[in-house]
Amino acid sequence: MKKIILIPDSFKGTLSSEGICHIMEEGVRHHYPQAQVISIPVADGGEGSVDCFLAAVGGEKVDAEVTGVFGKPMRAAYGLIDEGRTAVIEMAACAGLPLAEGDLNPGAATTYGVGELMLDAARRGVNKIIMGLGGSATNDGGCGCAAACGVVFKDDQGRAFMPTGYSLKDIAAIETDGLDPLLKKITITVMCDIDNPMYGKYGAAYIFGPQKGADAAMVKTLDAGLEHLNNQFKMHLEKDFSALPGGGAAGAMGAGMAAFFGAELQMGIDTVLDTVGYDDLVRDATLVFSGEGQIDGQSLGGKVVVGVARRTAPHAVPLIAVVGTIADDFAPVYDEGVTAVFSINTKAMDFAESRYHSADNLAITMDNILRLAKGLGV
Amino acid sequence: MKKIILIPDSFKGTLSSEGICHIMEEGVRHHYPQAQVISIPVADGGEGSVDCFLAAVGGEKVDAEVTGVFGKPMRAAYGLIDEGRTAVIEMAACAGLPLAEGDLNPGAATTYGVGELMLDAARRGVNKIIMGLGGSATNDGGCGCAAACGVVFKDDQGRAFMPTGYSLKDIAAIETDGLDPLLKKITITVMCDIDNPMYGKYGAAYIFGPQKGADAAMVKTLDAGLEHLNNQFKMHLEKDFSALPGGGAAGAMGAGMAAFFGAELQMGIDTVLDTVGYDDLVRDATLVFSGEGQIDGQSLGGKVVVGVARRTAPHAVPLIAVVGTIADDFAPVYDEGVTAVFSINTKAMDFAESRYHSADNLAITMDNILRLAKGLGV
Repeated sequence: MKKIILIPDSFKGTLSSEGICHIMEEGVRHHYPQAQVISIPVADGGEGSVDCFLAAVGGEKVDAEVTGVFGKPMRAAYGLIDEGRTAVIEMAACAGLPLAEGDLNPGAATTYGVGELMLDAARRGVNKIIMGLGGSATNDGGCGCAAACGVVFKDDQGRAFMPTGYSLKDIAAIETDGLDPLLKKITITVMCDIDNPMYGKYGAAYIFGPQKGADAAMVKTLDAGLEHLNNQFKMHLEKDFSALPGGGAAGAMGAGMAAFFGAELQMGIDTVLDTVGYDDLVRDATLVFSGEGQIDGQSLGGKVVVGVARRTAPHAVPLIAVVGTIADDFAPVYDEGVTAVFSINTKAMDFAESRYHSADNLAITMDNILRLAKGLGV
Repeated sequence: MKKIILIPDSFKGTLSSEGICHIMEEGVRHHYPQAQVISIPVADGGEGSVDCFLAAVGGEKVDAEVTGVFGKPMRAAYGLIDEGRTAVIEMAACAGLPLAEGDLNPGAATTYGVGELMLDAARRGVNKIIMGLGGSATNDGGCGCAAACGVVFKDDQGRAFMPTGYSLKDIAAIETDGLDPLLKKITITVMCDIDNPMYGKYGAAYIFGPQKGADAAMVKTLDAGLEHLNNQFKMHLEKDFSALPGGGAAGAMGAGMAAFFGAELQMGIDTVLDTVGYDDLVRDATLVFSGEGQIDGQSLGGKVVVGVARRTAPHAVPLIAVVGTIADDFAPVYDEGVTAVFSINTKAMDFAESRYHSADNLAITMDNILRLAKGLGV
């Protein structure tokens, strides 16, 4: 029996990865009604990541009362997969930009609720937490999350407080003894698709601060706060996170997850591939379809198609990438194991217009690839 | 041994069919260096048609001194193929728009030189003439061509004259007895990709007159002249060409070729397919690549890809269409035998910009189709 795996990223701004899976699956079922179709919409850690995991491997959604991004109580959901053994948390669920809309303030926003979600999962007995960074409104280096889990921050007067972006500079001591013991037995994997460091010119505040509402002066303050936080890490945890790739993700939550919880930062696609057991799935597959908004050669590190290709190539299964844009420098992807790349553009048309045809264009492109495959005897 | 046939139309305004064949062939040779590659650039009857035939089947180019579009002597070339048994003439060689540039006047332009080319070919002993219509500057219903070949036109005073667009109305008698006997033994096939009738709202003058320089008043005169010519056909040849599809091609040269020479009007793609012996070629082919600027469902009659498809499908050889634009209504082409359609657009981009990337985009698209074919075991 034919086995066809669909494992696309979203096309940013036009189609969700779940939507793409749906369109791809319709095409496959039309041409190969007998085939086994495995749909794995890829999560990038941001909003929608929990739903992607649930769609890919099944599981349940649970929720808990937690502290919102500006301290107000709220209910936030996360996913339980792998028969309840793994929790998938997207930090955007209680610390996301949409929750701060109309009142953006990365200096005051907190990740405290994210820590509460981790504790809730821990109490349910998970042995693994997948934490999706992305879409955050915060810049607290994960201190709020850590505080919720029992880490104590003190100022130079020895007073405990919960640091946010503005008050990172006041940290004079970090005490991790109080960290909830449940969390110590849990493996924490952080999905993180960017390379930015904690602070500095390419750090969290300078690169992502403005889209969270920080003006130039606030960016400077936030950046100094994160540098101060890393100095505290060096002093109290004896570890330096200044050079950690991805440390700057989600307002330096990346660095915080590593510092406070010993979490491993991983490319999101690798987390997905590990979670679905891709290496076993692909072994006897007939075809794999992946895709992303733009395929290019520059960012081979963080892209979904290349991530899938690297783990498909060893099994000699053809991998077809269906993309929005084929960038001029994309050719190196072939060396990574991509068999062929097709753009969904069916006519010369500006993106301002073509974006409204993405779903139809994807369907047409999939249909023709499948027609060709059938025509060639597959 | 793999056998791959490349038989594309031009992409109007961006790539010639010969240029497309070249790019396609490079791709094929890269991935299948051992394959037999048969390149058949498709001619549409207009400028470049002779070169296409010579590229597809070999032969030689000859030339002759003839009468230009406004009476001035000039040298014009045509092709001899099939070991000198068939002449390929493009009327644009001595009656084409570029020759009239700066001095457009469809009322005065003549196809006389085209008749001289036919006679030249006849004297060389051909038994077949393929006449390409297209790109003409004339509106004389082929009367000039006929006059050159011995047909006599007389006015109501019995005086012989050579009618042009303006003076069609003066024809009072047509005498075909003087037609050169050499021409009577020659099969004449006219390549004609349009359906327009001789005259009327959708006729030669109204539809194509303006681009040849006719203003509204001249269009009316030319149209009336063509209607008069058909009345003369009815009277003196006892045939009515008013409803002949394609009669209006090339200033009603289509009707004239049928009326004066008994020529058969044929879709250009069918002429090409017949000439290259396509039915035999395709029988044991591995793959066929065709293409055109836009694939759509409305004009199934006259398009190259569909023409190729209809004669490929009976042999169950996969036919891949590589096109500039996939129009919204293209789906019926599958029923004609097209296996799959791919657009060369690699990104969302307006045609004003993308046209300059056509060659690269075609190369990328071909490359990926071939990579996929190889990946699928072809």
